[in-house]
Amino acid sequence: MKDNGVQKAVFTDESSIAYLAGFWGYLGIEFGRPTLLVVDADDEPVVITPLMESEMVAEMTWVTDVRVWEDIGQRTWGRALAGALGDKPTRIWIERGTIPASVRNYLDDTYPGVALKDISPLLGKLRMIKTPFEIGVMKEAGQIAGAMMTAAHESLREGAREYESALAVIEAGSRKAAGFLTDEGWDRFVSPMIHNLQILQSGAETSMVHRRAGVRTYRKFDPVYFCFCNMAQFKQYKLGFDRMFHIGEVTDQARHVQEAAIAAQQAAIAAIRPGVLAREIAAAANEVYRERGYQTGYRTGRSIGVAYLEAPELKEGDNTVLKAGMTFAVDGGISVDGVTAGRIGDSVVVTENGCDYITDYPREILLSKH
Amino acid sequence: MKDNGVQKAVFTDESSIAYLAGFWGYLGIEFGRPTLLVVDADDEPVVITPLMESEMVAEMTWVTDVRVWEDIGQRTWGRALAGALGDKPTRIWIERGTIPASVRNYLDDTYPGVALKDISPLLGKLRMIKTPFEIGVMKEAGQIAGAMMTAAHESLREGAREYESALAVIEAGSRKAAGFLTDEGWDRFVSPMIHNLQILQSGAETSMVHRRAGVRTYRKFDPVYFCFCNMAQFKQYKLGFDRMFHIGEVTDQARHVQEAAIAAQQAAIAAIRPGVLAREIAAAANEVYRERGYQTGYRTGRSIGVAYLEAPELKEGDNTVLKAGMTFAVDGGISVDGVTAGRIGDSVVVTENGCDYITDYPREILLSKH
Repeated sequence: MKDNGVQKAVFTDESSIAYLAGFWGYLGIEFGRPTLLVVDADDEPVVITPLMESEMVAEMTWVTDVRVWEDIGQRTWGRALAGALGDKPTRIWIERGTIPASVRNYLDDTYPGVALKDISPLLGKLRMIKTPFEIGVMKEAGQIAGAMMTAAHESLREGAREYESALAVIEAGSRKAAGFLTDEGWDRFVSPMIHNLQILQSGAETSMVHRRAGVRTYRKFDPVYFCFCNMAQFKQYKLGFDRMFHIGEVTDQARHVQEAAIAAQQAAIAAIRPGVLAREIAAAANEVYRERGYQTGYRTGRSIGVAYLEAPELKEGDNTVLKAGMTFAVDGGISVDGVTAGRIGDSVVVTENGCDYITDYPREILLSKH
Repeated sequence: MKDNGVQKAVFTDESSIAYLAGFWGYLGIEFGRPTLLVVDADDEPVVITPLMESEMVAEMTWVTDVRVWEDIGQRTWGRALAGALGDKPTRIWIERGTIPASVRNYLDDTYPGVALKDISPLLGKLRMIKTPFEIGVMKEAGQIAGAMMTAAHESLREGAREYESALAVIEAGSRKAAGFLTDEGWDRFVSPMIHNLQILQSGAETSMVHRRAGVRTYRKFDPVYFCFCNMAQFKQYKLGFDRMFHIGEVTDQARHVQEAAIAAQQAAIAAIRPGVLAREIAAAANEVYRERGYQTGYRTGRSIGVAYLEAPELKEGDNTVLKAGMTFAVDGGISVDGVTAGRIGDSVVVTENGCDYITDYPREILLSKH
């Protein structure tokens, strides 16, 4: 931190705190309750957490200085934060792009004129190269995601409904995750539950983006798209993973669109190896879209880790040099409005010679089995 | 708005936008993509949404001026926002306590010196009294939550695991919700899926707060606590609802603690009727805790609606006069650290003469059936 001129930093993002301090508070800011990690370049780190969660937090984190606050009375989180920041800080480093409004407002009101600097790029650099331990966790997440996709595939048949697929996905993923957990020590605070709202699109509405599982009934020829990018996670590590299926048979148009999406993704993945620039991976995919007459996408991939979206990104303008240990979600995607879409996404880890898949399911035209 | 001196307001909270404009964007700020509603006291409202979700958004909202933005190129969300705010606003009303950091930073950078005022109290007042239509939706949510609690109860037996209960809850709630939905019009964008991470505590860890479902195995005498407060929702309306069960038998200590929690909740609910002050409801519960020798809680209840936590709250110091159409989550809660806890929570709507339950499940000592 000191080498970068950082003296006092306040971390507020759940995944940053998990990365640095090994625990996650579960309360959520939507109920008005922040959890904070204060790091001083010359001092022990401080965890600030609601009293009611402190028993759980203290058992999860390696940080010994855990300070609690209460909803009522004089022991507010603001006082705990002021105590940890000490007398008259001249600048405070925060996660400027994600800090909860309540914490930002408190800092503005309590330290008028004190510069709020952004610690996120520094933390992003720290997190860019994953350790073998982290890659191991992500590979478990990949197996969980694979079980989810197998269940998605099995759920497909004419007359079945979208939400029935979503239920099958949650069950299969949660059971697989449970197999990686014990009821001992830190592990016992990790939930195997697959949660967040399933992105699932079928039929003509497949061209809409980020539609959620509804009550729609599958019909013959329907495309059905499963995206697990907001659900496939384990121990706070997130993956990107998505596949397109077709009910019974595939139309020629849908086949061509899907084949182009797969070809673009495969071109990107084939280009990944240490030393290549992030933008060159996007260029490899964009060449395929151009050749086949489709629009190029915004980005071909994004880094993944404890956050959904990390640095670098596989897109035009990103000149980061790829290194072994970086992890990416790599997507192929084409939308034909109101008709269909072609989409595929996998997670990979950069190796010494190229890359390995973290997620795995056939990369070809996929039909329902029933 | 004008009566309150508000000319230009920017809404950023998903549930506020749902309440005012009838749609919800699903992208989520965690992928860096804001959805905004700009309201001018003298003009048509403007929805600003990512291009990729605009097809879905336009079909859901009654707002006709839907402006889209793209991840790449000149059509940024910042430009769309500046366009909707018009020339030189002198003050901008925002949801100050919840505005995403990225939007707040944009406003700070683009409009230096322009006052950012808080619209939340005004919106909170608007939302305080629910319409019969809203109460109807919340009663459907109550039936869904009831199905979830029945499944939770049925899942309990010695040797079963916490996550198996959580799976049963998700399945039962999603199937019940699906029964309230059609695949026509606006309805088809509503997902019946029960999501978010299940709060579930069992055994000695029941005294921990906000622990999530893990792989722990239930043993005889275990307390098992199900809280649906972050999961029981339908069409963006959220409820509070929780119950405590015991596996096989209940110890005397656990029985006394649980009976006290129920008595406190029932005292609060008995006090609810139009004309009473919010703090008086809390006082009724606190009297029970005192009589039985337990600490009083921070709050006995909170208003519910499209947000998890609305105004007023049933707690010391809140002098709001209760009126028919207000909706509350009303809780009884006692923790005995490292041993057990007593907890119960229901949602109610204030009526002309008292209140009606929105959620329903027996309010007594509950044992597993198997």
